[in-house]
Amino acid sequence: MKIVIAPDSFKGSLSAASAAEAIAAGVRRCLPDADIIQLPIADGGEGTLDSLLAAAGGERITLSVTGPLGKPVEASYGLVRHTAVIEMAEASGLCLLTEGERNPALATTYGTGELIRHALDQGCRRFLLTVGGSATNDGGTGMLQALGMRLLNRDGRSVLPGGGHLAEIVAIDDSYWDTRVAESSFVIATDVQNPFVGEQGASRIFSQQKGASPEMIEQMEVGMASWADLIEARTGTRLHDRPGAGAAGGLCGAYLAFFPASISRGIDVVLEHVRMKEHLTGADLVLTGEGRIDHQTASGKAPMGVAQLASQHGVPTIALAGSVGPGIEALYAEGICSVHSIMQSTISLQEAIEQASDLLEQTAEQVVRTFLAGRKAAQ
Amino acid sequence: MKIVIAPDSFKGSLSAASAAEAIAAGVRRCLPDADIIQLPIADGGEGTLDSLLAAAGGERITLSVTGPLGKPVEASYGLVRHTAVIEMAEASGLCLLTEGERNPALATTYGTGELIRHALDQGCRRFLLTVGGSATNDGGTGMLQALGMRLLNRDGRSVLPGGGHLAEIVAIDDSYWDTRVAESSFVIATDVQNPFVGEQGASRIFSQQKGASPEMIEQMEVGMASWADLIEARTGTRLHDRPGAGAAGGLCGAYLAFFPASISRGIDVVLEHVRMKEHLTGADLVLTGEGRIDHQTASGKAPMGVAQLASQHGVPTIALAGSVGPGIEALYAEGICSVHSIMQSTISLQEAIEQASDLLEQTAEQVVRTFLAGRKAAQ
Repeated sequence: MKIVIAPDSFKGSLSAASAAEAIAAGVRRCLPDADIIQLPIADGGEGTLDSLLAAAGGERITLSVTGPLGKPVEASYGLVRHTAVIEMAEASGLCLLTEGERNPALATTYGTGELIRHALDQGCRRFLLTVGGSATNDGGTGMLQALGMRLLNRDGRSVLPGGGHLAEIVAIDDSYWDTRVAESSFVIATDVQNPFVGEQGASRIFSQQKGASPEMIEQMEVGMASWADLIEARTGTRLHDRPGAGAAGGLCGAYLAFFPASISRGIDVVLEHVRMKEHLTGADLVLTGEGRIDHQTASGKAPMGVAQLASQHGVPTIALAGSVGPGIEALYAEGICSVHSIMQSTISLQEAIEQASDLLEQTAEQVVRTFLAGRKAAQ
Repeated sequence: MKIVIAPDSFKGSLSAASAAEAIAAGVRRCLPDADIIQLPIADGGEGTLDSLLAAAGGERITLSVTGPLGKPVEASYGLVRHTAVIEMAEASGLCLLTEGERNPALATTYGTGELIRHALDQGCRRFLLTVGGSATNDGGTGMLQALGMRLLNRDGRSVLPGGGHLAEIVAIDDSYWDTRVAESSFVIATDVQNPFVGEQGASRIFSQQKGASPEMIEQMEVGMASWADLIEARTGTRLHDRPGAGAAGGLCGAYLAFFPASISRGIDVVLEHVRMKEHLTGADLVLTGEGRIDHQTASGKAPMGVAQLASQHGVPTIALAGSVGPGIEALYAEGICSVHSIMQSTISLQEAIEQASDLLEQTAEQVVRTFLAGRKAAQ
């Protein structure tokens, strides 16, 4: 019996790797001899780097870079099978700031550019870029500056960092631009469909949660539009209404305009990197999971991507979740056979978080026992 | 696909019949054409009457009888396939009293005797006696009196009702005893192993929860021992240390001494009455359940009895529970393949009780979907 265990993280309680470990322990309790493949995954958002390193192996490289507000932070990127996995949140993420520090008018993606530059220095020319969890709304300007792009104001001086200064940029000087970027290939993992500007753009949709006031939002929207105009004039790439360009406060737009980059659905990129297809060969069952599974899971979340791929290979997928919400019927057509909550009684959220690993182990065991009962009944 | 649905009640939220209904609804959601047999069951305690009527059909007969403290109460018994099902709690149960009214020194089983007499009047000669949930500790004296037995004190007068007067009984006069009792057969459904008297006897183990003070307990213990001596002298039946004689405040002992009666394990009696064996023929799966399933379930509770019988017939059993506790491994050897909680997220006990039916329906559907995934994988 071969079982592929491919959960996302259970947010707030278990990393994807810990979740895979707990599920594997549960499976072993009833199938000690099973061939168990642990493939912690992610949907391309925060945690993708950790999941890829856990699932596919590789090297974690940690360095000091410029944090979102200028203070140095320790940030990591991964080298996974000759691909540099750059998680922007590592250098420029909301998680690096206290609630009071959040300010997208000042926050910069400079550190993300430093990570890319470091990987280029290591000789890396293949990149996977994840863009979830950003603290920024700077249209990728900081990242570009870190790679040598000069963004100049009327006085011919470099603009200050942050989404609050985009309107000041009047010229792009690429004299010092890192030419190794053009020799490389970049895949951006994101499911965000928001464009650079407008009602559904980066500023209006995402910057409030990054700490922007209503006035700040409108000021940044004007700056982002001006920056988009300048990019279009300079590169010919129109980001204004391009789906996905608004991800990570417009960082994704900058990638698209200045990098040889394309967008892929997060989970698909991850599944490819962990070589899910190869692992599905000969598998009898896939166990996936996430903190919460409900109708939203159908819109590109990790468990659904797993199930879709498994289904194409004729392998059934069962999903485990901390909390199961309404609308899971939508998942059946995507290859998810059934969804089981890990709760075993009425406990508080705090208790559930503390006991998540044990609960997941127990549920995995019971689910596999039920699956095996069905298997045996047919024989 | 034939599925037998045989849950006990989910105490505090769902009767066994409602639980079976919810599970059936869940099964139908994924198997609209399944052959579904609903057999709500019970472990021989309170609720057995309702479950048997729901599972096996029959007639519910309701009459006014003497309540535990003398006030009339409406009580029912069942006529199920020529067997009268007499649930003592209907006439003499703790549930008929407020917490303040509880008093085993006064409470009587007289009403239970009236139910039996009524069934005898209807021509019934086969009886199933359930003894859970009693408010009494009268050694069955009230029940015997209702059937014509005279229990006399030194002055030759009938003793007053209740466990507080047992020591006064010095003579048994059966001149008016209902002779139809001897022409009948009685099966007592109980898992209680406690004897009539002693450290593990009815008074010391059960009467505190029925409202007895420590002094009252010792006084009743003396009375119960005296009553046991008298019974032994008169009938030759020694109840003092007989396992089960202490059930329902010694009512069970009176049945054993004065009736052609034998004790059977509650769940076995119930399974026989609902013809579980016949329904298992050709079944692919049994779904059982109870409010809580843990290591205690292994000691004769309904889901375990169901699983044991199903296992003998080669049919797998999966259990569903409101709350799953530790030690369920002990159930695997008894034929329970797996145990699933109906919880889907962290909710309060009150919410769980209110949503129990929906939660059970959803869980049943998911469990069957997982079972079917296993079944399909083997084909």
